Amino acid sequence: MDRTMRITDLSISDLESRQAVLQGEYDEVKAAKLSLDLTRGKPATAQLDLSNELDGILEGFFLLQDGTDVRNYGGILGIPEARELGATILGIDSESVMVGGNSSLTMMYNYVSHMLTRWQEEDGTIKFICPVPGYDRHFTICEQLGIEMITVGFTDDGPDMDAIDSLMASDPMIKGIWCVPRYSNPTGHSYSDEVVKRFAKLGKSAGNHFRIIWDNAYAVHHLADTPDRLTNLLAACEKEDTSDSVVMFASTSKVTFAGSGISFVGTSAQNLSDFEAFLSTQLIGFDKVNQLRHVRFLKDADAIKAHMEKHKDIVQPKFAMVEQKLDSALAGKGVASWTKPKGGYFVSLDTTYGVADEVVELAADAGVKLTPAGATFPYGQDPDNSNIRIAPTYPPIAELDKAMDVFVLCLELATVTHLITA
Amino acid sequence: MDRTMRITDLSISDLESRQAVLQGEYDEVKAAKLSLDLTRGKPATAQLDLSNELDGILEGFFLLQDGTDVRNYGGILGIPEARELGATILGIDSESVMVGGNSSLTMMYNYVSHMLTRWQEEDGTIKFICPVPGYDRHFTICEQLGIEMITVGFTDDGPDMDAIDSLMASDPMIKGIWCVPRYSNPTGHSYSDEVVKRFAKLGKSAGNHFRIIWDNAYAVHHLADTPDRLTNLLAACEKEDTSDSVVMFASTSKVTFAGSGISFVGTSAQNLSDFEAFLSTQLIGFDKVNQLRHVRFLKDADAIKAHMEKHKDIVQPKFAMVEQKLDSALAGKGVASWTKPKGGYFVSLDTTYGVADEVVELAADAGVKLTPAGATFPYGQDPDNSNIRIAPTYPPIAELDKAMDVFVLCLELATVTHLITA
Repeated sequence: MDRTMRITDLSISDLESRQAVLQGEYDEVKAAKLSLDLTRGKPATAQLDLSNELDGILEGFFLLQDGTDVRNYGGILGIPEARELGATILGIDSESVMVGGNSSLTMMYNYVSHMLTRWQEEDGTIKFICPVPGYDRHFTICEQLGIEMITVGFTDDGPDMDAIDSLMASDPMIKGIWCVPRYSNPTGHSYSDEVVKRFAKLGKSAGNHFRIIWDNAYAVHHLADTPDRLTNLLAACEKEDTSDSVVMFASTSKVTFAGSGISFVGTSAQNLSDFEAFLSTQLIGFDKVNQLRHVRFLKDADAIKAHMEKHKDIVQPKFAMVEQKLDSALAGKGVASWTKPKGGYFVSLDTTYGVADEVVELAADAGVKLTPAGATFPYGQDPDNSNIRIAPTYPPIAELDKAMDVFVLCLELATVTHLITA
Repeated sequence: MDRTMRITDLSISDLESRQAVLQGEYDEVKAAKLSLDLTRGKPATAQLDLSNELDGILEGFFLLQDGTDVRNYGGILGIPEARELGATILGIDSESVMVGGNSSLTMMYNYVSHMLTRWQEEDGTIKFICPVPGYDRHFTICEQLGIEMITVGFTDDGPDMDAIDSLMASDPMIKGIWCVPRYSNPTGHSYSDEVVKRFAKLGKSAGNHFRIIWDNAYAVHHLADTPDRLTNLLAACEKEDTSDSVVMFASTSKVTFAGSGISFVGTSAQNLSDFEAFLSTQLIGFDKVNQLRHVRFLKDADAIKAHMEKHKDIVQPKFAMVEQKLDSALAGKGVASWTKPKGGYFVSLDTTYGVADEVVELAADAGVKLTPAGATFPYGQDPDNSNIRIAPTYPPIAELDKAMDVFVLCLELATVTHLITA
């Protein structure tokens, strides 16, 4: 049997003999009792090593130019030098930037919490638009805070703006939208100039309390020599007089130490001051010593670029391997389609038939952990049961090699089994 | 006129001549345009210097005994070694400890937020008991979250337990109480064994969702050679089968770097697991690199004790100066009474007449910033307008000397003026 034949062209008996072969391979793999993990977008040890000099980089100097002692209490907006760093990463003015602690997710959670009381002043269920597939932790925030999620799909240019416009025109209780505008998690989309311009217009008719949560998590995380471009939304909003409608987020989690970086919020002066007041109830200030460490280490745009090139050298071969494994095992078979991202941390794969949960289960039983099927959709429910997020960065390349072999095997086995029993 | 005469024994003309003298001194001070600050309990630079080796202490070693790489994502409960450190500071078992980021206030805010949805399931206004005077940031959390505050006073042994028992018996919507059980902010009270035992009983009849917020902020912050003792509340609660009613907090903010330390939460296994689940929506984990730094630096109980002795050597002379200034200027005059704390960060002073706001204003006009009058009470309202919190740790001793001279001057001037116009 030709391994590259389209699966829909196979007869039932062809499918059955193929299933037998795959099942035999699967049983062998299972016996090997692997323990491999493709679940989360975690940097590899070699990537973490790139930033080891962070600890100790201050060499006993804790004073800022303005006389601030970073070791002591205070200053919710962050140290000026780190706000400058955030401005460089977000491509905005440093006065629009707040620098937070080790988690931009915490900043997003707090920002949404902070708006909640305003939204609750209106009658009705608060709703967010969620382009899907998307980032599970965004959706969990909505779920915990009781915000209803409405999904829209993607076009090549980013989220389906026509669908978004029409939803917003029909429902004034839509108060926000989640976006990962560059190398979107997990699809790898970077929003086109036109899409960003349309985002800038959303705030015009949406009321004062509508917020675009612009999670620029992969702002500087390129895999290709020619990075995707991204128009600056805050600048575009300033032209449309909708600056209050955008709140940008970024962090150094996948730049320095994943769990011990700093985070950035970028938004209008009014939003920043409201948010600062909100946060002042729960903290005196974020960790300024760590902010200063990051300033000393990441320095400026050129230094960041050079540093991210080193990440690319480690990460890019892993993405190349995923692509090669998928291509060589599945190209032309009609079993699945997948993305070839130019940055970020994920490959997004859609099975042709609704077998994502089956693939994840087969892989788990064979010792390869994948993100749960459905995780990339609100409430964990993928209506097509087809999207699987592959996170290739964390495992060493030899493990990734094995894990991908198991994955493509499980994918084809689940598909063949589906077609036989369908 | 005898400067040590009781102020109530003075005639109006005596008071007027005293006022003239004080006003003259005050005008001179004002002309000197001082800029001194006694507002917040911030460590002095010399105290921060005690921990400078924190930055760089890891020397490139980021792996834990269990193989965890502290640089990467994950682990909301904190690294085992830091949980052990928290257990030492809180005097409880490490399995009862969560280790957080740089702010125990954030942990308290989150903990109270987390309980809010449960409390809201019952009909009625949620209420907290607040022993007063107390810590303004506790009260602000209640205010932001819409929790009504009911005040109780102190006896020599700690909060007025009879008043607390009677409030709780009469109102099932009392869901919590704020406590700083050792060297209470600002009064310096350490709760007696008997008071702690009575706290352990509160949970018996208060329902499953009642929580004692036990902010042990000054757990190891002694000023005297014989520290105040404090019975362990969690152990006492275990005996009474009320472990879920207590949530302990502590931090290293006034042990290492005020803005860049780590925080601890100590509570029952059930509470810890509920809280962990709540936090998992807003973060992947706290800064484990900084947790490991603190483990390497603070080591164990003996090392912490030795380190805190160094703080005491810096801080104790400042408290001695405050006491000496108050004694020499005001003893026997009937103008105010004040505390002589054996630990913590504050001296609490009560004016005899309701002139606290006037004193703070006079001092401010003379260039000495004090915590706003009323700040130590819920909603910023001191019914007697008499409590003033003095924070002597931050200024260098020469500045403290000047600031206290201004303070006692303003205090006497405001009192004399009050008596003349009353």
